[in-house]
Amino acid sequence: MAITVVGSVAFDSIETPAGRRDRCLGGAATYFSLAASYFTDVRVIAVVGEDFGPQEDAVFAARSIDTAGIERASGKSFFWEGSYLENLNEAKTHATELNVFGAFQPKIPESYRDSEFLFLANIDPVLQRRVRESMPNARLVAGDTMNYWINDHRDALKEVLKGLDILLINDTETKSLAGSKNLVQAARTVLAMGPRMLVVKHGEYGATAFYGSSPLNLGAKTFRAPALPLEEVVYPTGAGDSFAGGFFGYLASQGKLTPGSFRRAMFYGSVMGSFAVERFGTERLQQLSRPEIDKRFEMFRELTHLD
Amino acid sequence: MAITVVGSVAFDSIETPAGRRDRCLGGAATYFSLAASYFTDVRVIAVVGEDFGPQEDAVFAARSIDTAGIERASGKSFFWEGSYLENLNEAKTHATELNVFGAFQPKIPESYRDSEFLFLANIDPVLQRRVRESMPNARLVAGDTMNYWINDHRDALKEVLKGLDILLINDTETKSLAGSKNLVQAARTVLAMGPRMLVVKHGEYGATAFYGSSPLNLGAKTFRAPALPLEEVVYPTGAGDSFAGGFFGYLASQGKLTPGSFRRAMFYGSVMGSFAVERFGTERLQQLSRPEIDKRFEMFRELTHLD
Repeated sequence: MAITVVGSVAFDSIETPAGRRDRCLGGAATYFSLAASYFTDVRVIAVVGEDFGPQEDAVFAARSIDTAGIERASGKSFFWEGSYLENLNEAKTHATELNVFGAFQPKIPESYRDSEFLFLANIDPVLQRRVRESMPNARLVAGDTMNYWINDHRDALKEVLKGLDILLINDTETKSLAGSKNLVQAARTVLAMGPRMLVVKHGEYGATAFYGSSPLNLGAKTFRAPALPLEEVVYPTGAGDSFAGGFFGYLASQGKLTPGSFRRAMFYGSVMGSFAVERFGTERLQQLSRPEIDKRFEMFRELTHLD
Repeated sequence: MAITVVGSVAFDSIETPAGRRDRCLGGAATYFSLAASYFTDVRVIAVVGEDFGPQEDAVFAARSIDTAGIERASGKSFFWEGSYLENLNEAKTHATELNVFGAFQPKIPESYRDSEFLFLANIDPVLQRRVRESMPNARLVAGDTMNYWINDHRDALKEVLKGLDILLINDTETKSLAGSKNLVQAARTVLAMGPRMLVVKHGEYGATAFYGSSPLNLGAKTFRAPALPLEEVVYPTGAGDSFAGGFFGYLASQGKLTPGSFRRAMFYGSVMGSFAVERFGTERLQQLSRPEIDKRFEMFRELTHLD
């Protein structure tokens, strides 16, 4: 089943303890698409500027990602500059230039409208909602957000949450959205806002899924996937979006949500996140193979399973 | 197989968001012993003052813990006062009164000397080493330490590490001992200091075991046990010592270290840690049953296993 994703396609200049890269191809929709492309067909809705050239195009094309929904606008693409010199778990932002992204009005190609899987990456909740409403055939909708929307655009975000099957955010965002310091209590509060499932990403400690009292009975109330203990984290940007891509890409490839497919999707999310951080930018995600991915999936099983 | 543990038996006055308790029975050896007592025979080496009365004695007696090695000295027992009001993961210390513990010279009862399992809880590494050397029959030795010994008594601590089979410490301690910000690199550095295995406790995120290149071939290089997502953490003190007690108690009950027993021991460690924090002081650890423990073990399996 094809996934449609709406989100940012951007250029990032980033410094980490492993070095510095200028104007890497980045953005949530980019990481998500590349990660998901190893599991299913992916269609992107985004906007880029005139600086998005054949080299960037080729990254999507090499993974057969449908870019009919990437609008070319006059001006520059979204640009972000940041560093992880002190803390690999939290970026310090040096510059954010919205550029063409500031006036982004998602346009959905006719050919995308039969998508049954929809991912709303971290963008203005007003736009997330509009895309959701324009895709009535989407029967499984997942999304991400960030503290900026949680704190300053809460009402618009709450409207989006009502229509989500799965919300994927991190610990801080969960606690901040719920106004609670305890993760389990916060998760329950967030689930009461609408999402039928909540996946909380813990960075180097993996991710935990919480299930609401929904028609989707997934057995136990929680499931925890590990992260791989890594010798070196070269580039943390995009890890969360790659997790989402692996997670949702695998679910879409299975066609339906069962306790088993959901658990394996959590592991595939962690697997794709672990690959993403191994190299600068999207380097690692461009060069994977399914056997390599499945081999790492087995490492995750060995890392966590008793027998 | 019986375990001998050396460490502190103390009184703690602690405030958490759930309330306040004065002069609860505490100390690393107390939590360790209670947790381990559900798996095997436990013998304690410690020192207490005249304030340690029949009520405290009864807590050990009810779990058939051998207290022949608990010396009664004139003066008061070790006392600690702290709070977790701002952060449940890190205590703020208000007072530490070593009292009789300041002059602690561990005395090992003759009846303890055949113990094949030895746990050196967090005390002065000079004393840890002395106890280790007085127990030549111990064939599996595990231990804990803390930042104070890592920073200010490093040479003495390094001597202890050389003789350890398993070191159990937390993330911060591991990184600080190794002088590295990356956990995997830090783990390798610590393993090179002597311990054949390192168990890093991550608090609410569980624990990860790292195996050195030792005669103990445990398969994969790492294993990660989760922590249980808890609705309420009433009392975080003692969680790490309870983890160690469950972990080492289970290993001792199995008699030998195999890949399977080690993995299950990690889970039992997490199980006992999750019980410890549910009530104030040692309340929860005093009232468990093995079926209750095994039921939670199965919850941990369900929380993490794909099938």
